Amino acid sequence: MTPTDKGGREPEPLTLSDAQHAVDASIQALGGYWPPLAALARLFEEGGELARAVNQMYGPKLIKPGEAAASLDEELGDVLYITLALANDLGLDAEEALKGALARSQKRATK
Amino acid sequence: MTPTDKGGREPEPLTLSDAQHAVDASIQALGGYWPPLAALARLFEEGGELARAVNQMYGPKLIKPGEAAASLDEELGDVLYITLALANDLGLDAEEALKGALARSQKRATK
Amino acid sequence: MTPTDKGGREPEPLTLSDAQHAVDASIQALGGYWPPLAALARLFEEGGELARAVNQMYGPKLIKPGEAAASLDEELGDVLYITLALANDLGLDAEEALKGALARSQKRATK
Amino acid sequence: MTPTDKGGREPEPLTLSDAQHAVDASIQALGGYWPPLAALARLFEEGGELARAVNQMYGPKLIKPGEAAASLDEELGDVLYITLALANDLGLDAEEALKGALARSQKRATK
Repeated sequence: MTPTDKGGREPEPLTLSDAQHAVDASIQALGGYWPPLAALARLFEEGGELARAVNQMYGPKLIKPGEAAASLDEELGDVLYITLALANDLGLDAEEALKGALARSQKRATK
Repeated sequence: MTPTDKGGREPEPLTLSDAQHAVDASIQALGGYWPPLAALARLFEEGGELARAVNQMYGPKLIKPGEAAASLDEELGDVLYITLALANDLGLDAEEALKGALARSQKRATK
Repeated sequence: MTPTDKGGREPEPLTLSDAQHAVDASIQALGGYWPPLAALARLFEEGGELARAVNQMYGPKLIKPGEAAASLDEELGDVLYITLALANDLGLDAEEALKGALARSQKRATK
Repeated sequence: MTPTDKGGREPEPLTLSDAQHAVDASIQALGGYWPPLAALARLFEEGGELARAVNQMYGPKLIKPGEAAASLDEELGDVLYITLALANDLGLDAEEALKGALARSQKRATK
């Protein structure tokens, strides 16, 4: 799970802040950010591909003959990537945003 | 941005692995995981709320009289939360999944 | 199912073409069409509200105390409305588009 | 737009009720209805494919080399098909549901 890297040191686990920076570098290399509504359309698209993968694996959706099964891992990675790209685009701190969601959820749990 | 906390030490930045554990604790406190298709319906719902917030802020959607403006920060946090909950539910490592997406994106950029 | 209306005549059943015209009149009265990406964000939002309603009725989602249950009928109506608005916005004939989907589905069924 | 059909008569325009019956026959031929949460996952998937098509045509999304452009007409038809399938599955009358959405929209317009 955490193999030593080529130099013999363990790779540092990625923080949410590192993840936002890595996505930023990736978006810049691809030509820059899209307008927020277009980034959102991509969240819809990637979420829909994850829906297809989950429906094939845990629901009734059949894989058509000759069609490759969707990869849950790839589709979830794409949803995370575009969500962090949206965070960058909107000037949001993903760690803070997640902590807010965790706090709201805890409030519900203890009510 | 990273103020020292009450005890004088800086809080550690959250890793993606920490984030998955925090979401797991939160889901357990709320009664446990939903079936994957129900978790997906919640991704649809939370993504839709983010869509509404982005459309109010960057698109033509008006905030109705008496209606509170949606919070981009809260809606993005909820999308991240449910995406990490899905990762837990499906037994996926969010860091690995994101690294895959970054690698696929780099491949596209250098083509 | 098709009761006579107050005047004693049966109301004509709505064709898809009538439906597109009725949605067009409604959009015009509200100030006109949105750009396609903003209309799409609204499909995401309305689809997400339908997801919430279905998840409350057929999935594990609980209705929070003091919260009104989502109405399947209203949410499905809103998805239809925004889908027909998108068809208008994109210059598409909903009847032709649906017939195409029916034909593709028949092809799959008879394979 | 409305060519006479082979027998010399104009085809009747499709009513929303006809459309629900045609989708029902199609779903039966394909093996029957899915559980509502799985049908919803398919609405997410088809909506996402429409998002991709709109983003290619009206947004910044590029069509990858060797990739076919998504068809707006086909994607919109698939969204309509699955929305009507959901209406059938949930026992809803699409015409009534749409009329409700039109009435709510008129109320907003005249406020």
